[in-house]
This record gives sequence, structure tokens and C-alpha cells, in this order.
Amino acid sequence: MWMSELSARSGVPVATVKYYLREGLLPAGQATGATRAVYGEEHVRRLRLIRALVDVGGLRLAEVRRVVEAVDDETSSLHDVLGVAQAALTPDLPEPTAESRARVDALLRRLRWKVSDQSVNRVALARALDAMADAGDPLRADALEDYARTLLGLAEAEVPTIDTSSREVAVRQTVVRTVLVEPILLTLRRMAHEHVSQRSLSRRRR
Amino acid sequence: MWMSELSARSGVPVATVKYYLREGLLPAGQATGATRAVYGEEHVRRLRLIRALVDVGGLRLAEVRRVVEAVDDETSSLHDVLGVAQAALTPDLPEPTAESRARVDALLRRLRWKVSDQSVNRVALARALDAMADAGDPLRADALEDYARTLLGLAEAEVPTIDTSSREVAVRQTVVRTVLVEPILLTLRRMAHEHVSQRSLSRRRR
Repeated sequence: MWMSELSARSGVPVATVKYYLREGLLPAGQATGATRAVYGEEHVRRLRLIRALVDVGGLRLAEVRRVVEAVDDETSSLHDVLGVAQAALTPDLPEPTAESRARVDALLRRLRWKVSDQSVNRVALARALDAMADAGDPLRADALEDYARTLLGLAEAEVPTIDTSSREVAVRQTVVRTVLVEPILLTLRRMAHEHVSQRSLSRRRR
Repeated sequence: MWMSELSARSGVPVATVKYYLREGLLPAGQATGATRAVYGEEHVRRLRLIRALVDVGGLRLAEVRRVVEAVDDETSSLHDVLGVAQAALTPDLPEPTAESRARVDALLRRLRWKVSDQSVNRVALARALDAMADAGDPLRADALEDYARTLLGLAEAEVPTIDTSSREVAVRQTVVRTVLVEPILLTLRRMAHEHVSQRSLSRRRR
């Protein structure tokens, strides 16, 4: 297909497609003359991935580049690529307390979860535990473990539905689902609270 | 206790305590002279509630006032008060598509969840479903229902642990847990994804 069709199929304006080509985020098409080139399905998939990283994930171009390079690196597994994408989605956070860090490490050991030592999620979880303690309502250890087991159950249903027919599609789907399912879970939790509290608290006037 | 102790106990500066008194968010103390008054535990609880609404919930003063008025309204049930607090935590959202609205309404009917027709969470969930459809990866109906049942299980464990010894404490705890447990759930989900994908995808190089 020509550039114009590539733009229409991916929803990315021609000027932006050219920019991604210059930046090396999108591989060149097959030249068919001095100024024309044809593009294939792999270009559509790549552009859709870049748009998801920018529009849904809110990534800056340097972070998009890191993800795209991981996708292109033939020596990395799909798991590694998804790890790069997930890390790019989480902003750098200030250091949590040593106590919360140790609590997170102990939790992951006890659950035997394979989570990289460098994972930014270890920091994010420890920071969130600090915030609850700072608010005077620290999360109990058994509640934390219950949450972890519940989310593991969800992940076991979610991960197998990722389309792994191409790395681009798998990464794109992972980013979209990581980010866009999050508000769904939080909203359902708030609704469930309303429902449960309706049953148990609606006659309490204290 | 005097104003200075009230400030120390609640962590709210004296000038801010005086401001809340003038605004009527904090009831006056018991006058013990022309310029002095003594304060009780109910003032500490009220100040802690206001700080949680502002610092954790990110509420503006008009929204804090709405929550505090609901707490003081003897004719409203604790469930009603928690509903006011929860609504204040959710920003107003643009209208979702009619299709997603209908999908949310049908889900809640099928699950027999008691969620107010006016609940902003209905709008928030419909908007989140729209965002997934816009990203080209609509959420399947069975996945949505699985999420809902999972979050109901969590809520059934969470709501009974709320301390209902006073309305101030119950509202404060609900706000803190609604807001501060959310990043914990999202981070545990991301970690669980890493763990599950490690098992299933680490040898796939496609």
C-alpha cells in the first residue's frame, strides 16, 4: 500500500508517519522509485502500537523508542518485551521506606511470584503501603495477601487471552489492557462497596 | 484540650484550625472565657476527617463541606453518608455513549447490585468501556462480569472491616481505603501479569 493508505488504515496523519520514519521508529517501506515506497501490514501494526503507547500509555517518544527497540530485538523473549513496555508505563517514584520494601520482598517470596528485582512495581507497591501507614490506616498483612491472590486469579484469566500472533499486537494489547482495564476495576470496586454497604450499613445511623 | 493541643493531636496548623472554625467545618469549642475555648475528641476526629478528604481524596473545600454536612445530618444513614463521600471522590465525567450506558445498566441488573441510578460510577464505568472500544480492543461481556464478581468478593471482605464506632471515623476510613488501596490493587495486578507471563511467555520468541 502507499503512504496515504497506510495513514488511513492506521489513523496516523501522513506528516506524523513521515516523522516516525525519520526517527527510525517505523522501518522504511520497499522503495519503488526515487520518491515512492510501498508499505505492508507490519507497518500498520507498528503504527497502531506506537499510537497505543502514545495515546493510551501516555509515553514520551524516548520511551516509545525503548519499547520499539525491544520489539525489534530478536534475542529478547516476548516476556522480556512486555516487561519493557510495562516498565515504561510506570513513572519513576521516590524511594519508599526500607520497611515497606522489605514487606513487598517478603510477600513476593512467600507467594513465589517471579517478579524482577528491578521491577518498578516493587517500588510502587512499597510507596502505596507507606501512604496508607502515613494516613494512619496501615494495610494488614492478611489483607495484602488476599489482594495479591485475588489479582493473581484475574491475571491467570487475562494473560492467556493476549493475542501473541505478532509481538507488535501482543505489546499493543498488553498496554491497552493494562491501562484501560484499570479504571474498570476501580469503578467496579466502588460500585461493589456501595452495594455491600447498602446491605450492611443502610439502617445504621451512628 | 486547648487549641494548641488540638492542633498537635490532629496535625493541622492552628491557623488552619481557625479557618475551619470560621468556615463552619469544625464546630465551635466550649467557651471558657472571652477568647478561650476547650475542644474534645470529636474535634480531633473531625479535623482528621477533613485532612483525609483534602490530602488523600484531593477534595476542594466546597466538596469537603458537602461531606461534613452529610456526616452532621442526623436523618441520613451511614450508607448515605458514605455515598456522598464516594461521589465527591469521583470527578464529573463527559457523557458516555448510550450503548455503554445500557451495557452498565444491564450488568448491574443481572448482578442485582444495588447501585444508585445517579451514581457517578455508572458514568465512569461506561466511559471506561468506551475507551477500550475506541482503542480497538472492546472488553468482552464475560470478562466484565468476571471482573465484577471478583471485585464483589473483595468488597465483601473490605466493608465489614470499616470501623463504624463514629461516622467521622467510618467516612475517614472509607475515603482512605477507597483512594489508597487503589494503587495497591493496580500494582499487584501488574506484578501478577509479570509472574503469569513469565511462566507462559518466556520461551516464546514470536
